[in-house]
Amino acid sequence: MTRQIDFYFDFSSPYGYLASTQIDALGAKHGISVRWRPFLLGAVFKITGVVPLALVPLKGDYFFHDTQRSARLLGVPLTIPAQFPFGTVTSCRAFYLMQDESPEAAVRLAKALFHAAFAEGRDICPVEQVGAIAEEAGFDGDAVMTGIQRPEVKERLKREVEEAISRGVFGSPFFIVDGEPFWGMDRLDQVDQWLSHGG
Amino acid sequence: MTRQIDFYFDFSSPYGYLASTQIDALGAKHGISVRWRPFLLGAVFKITGVVPLALVPLKGDYFFHDTQRSARLLGVPLTIPAQFPFGTVTSCRAFYLMQDESPEAAVRLAKALFHAAFAEGRDICPVEQVGAIAEEAGFDGDAVMTGIQRPEVKERLKREVEEAISRGVFGSPFFIVDGEPFWGMDRLDQVDQWLSHGG
Repeated sequence: MTRQIDFYFDFSSPYGYLASTQIDALGAKHGISVRWRPFLLGAVFKITGVVPLALVPLKGDYFFHDTQRSARLLGVPLTIPAQFPFGTVTSCRAFYLMQDESPEAAVRLAKALFHAAFAEGRDICPVEQVGAIAEEAGFDGDAVMTGIQRPEVKERLKREVEEAISRGVFGSPFFIVDGEPFWGMDRLDQVDQWLSHGG
Repeated sequence: MTRQIDFYFDFSSPYGYLASTQIDALGAKHGISVRWRPFLLGAVFKITGVVPLALVPLKGDYFFHDTQRSARLLGVPLTIPAQFPFGTVTSCRAFYLMQDESPEAAVRLAKALFHAAFAEGRDICPVEQVGAIAEEAGFDGDAVMTGIQRPEVKERLKREVEEAISRGVFGSPFFIVDGEPFWGMDRLDQVDQWLSHGG
């Protein structure tokens, strides 16, 4: 079995975005592939009863401060969109629509969506926006907008979310390597150590 | 004003315990003092509506796995006590009772309490246990058991918890340096960078 990093994230997660700017380099360092797996954190929150960080008293203020500090330390631009948190069903469907054709194209689209949301502060929720961002990234925007309405694409996302939950994924970002779970941007160093030395 | 690290923690927090094994070395590295400030996470949870990690579906399993992995990477022993999470009012009061006499003695007692709970898996909640652990650490156990019943000691802890909350402390461990807040064991690297380079 080929070793790989499963990289789970929600498109509305700033820490997921920050991880997305680092994960490919980590995979390349160890010569293993990264499987990008967007899912819907909202579906998980229904199970865990957890509330989005930004909406929790005390934690919310810290969250906005910490994400900016972490972005600064990474040298990565970060703008939290005016509408936040935002729905990511359209982005996720676009990703899996694309992945059926080419995993590389799907990752390129994911990066374009993350960049639009968290570097440019755009609202990536409306289907027209997803189409526009896809078009800017060199894809056929109309085909994306049409494709994500297809029942099999909706079904595909549903299965992906169910599988993520069945594997114990409850946050974003979340990494699984050799069956070992790692939660959070700040576990990338432990992922790195795991890939170097195993358990 | 002397620069210092405010180190907030709950005695029932494994990540607080792990941080307690590292924080003095970090302070020493930068030649600044660490002010240990135990507080009651339960009081904060009443404000944030947050539930202890260990009790959250999906998160709970991960929590037990992650704390062990993190302890292993640090080379620190970790045993989660049978009764967990546990009450820490007695430990906190003993700490502040001791601190009025000597901050160094209070830190030594805190380390003994953490060690008893998370290295030996003992129940440190009952006042008799706090007395016994204090005695083992070279203190007068009877004086500790009597002292923590004093109204002014109870009042002192109450004030400390209120002050922690007023400073935005909502988790354990939590560090404040130059007014800058850092939440979590995995922010020690950012505390380190902050102390080296400032903002």
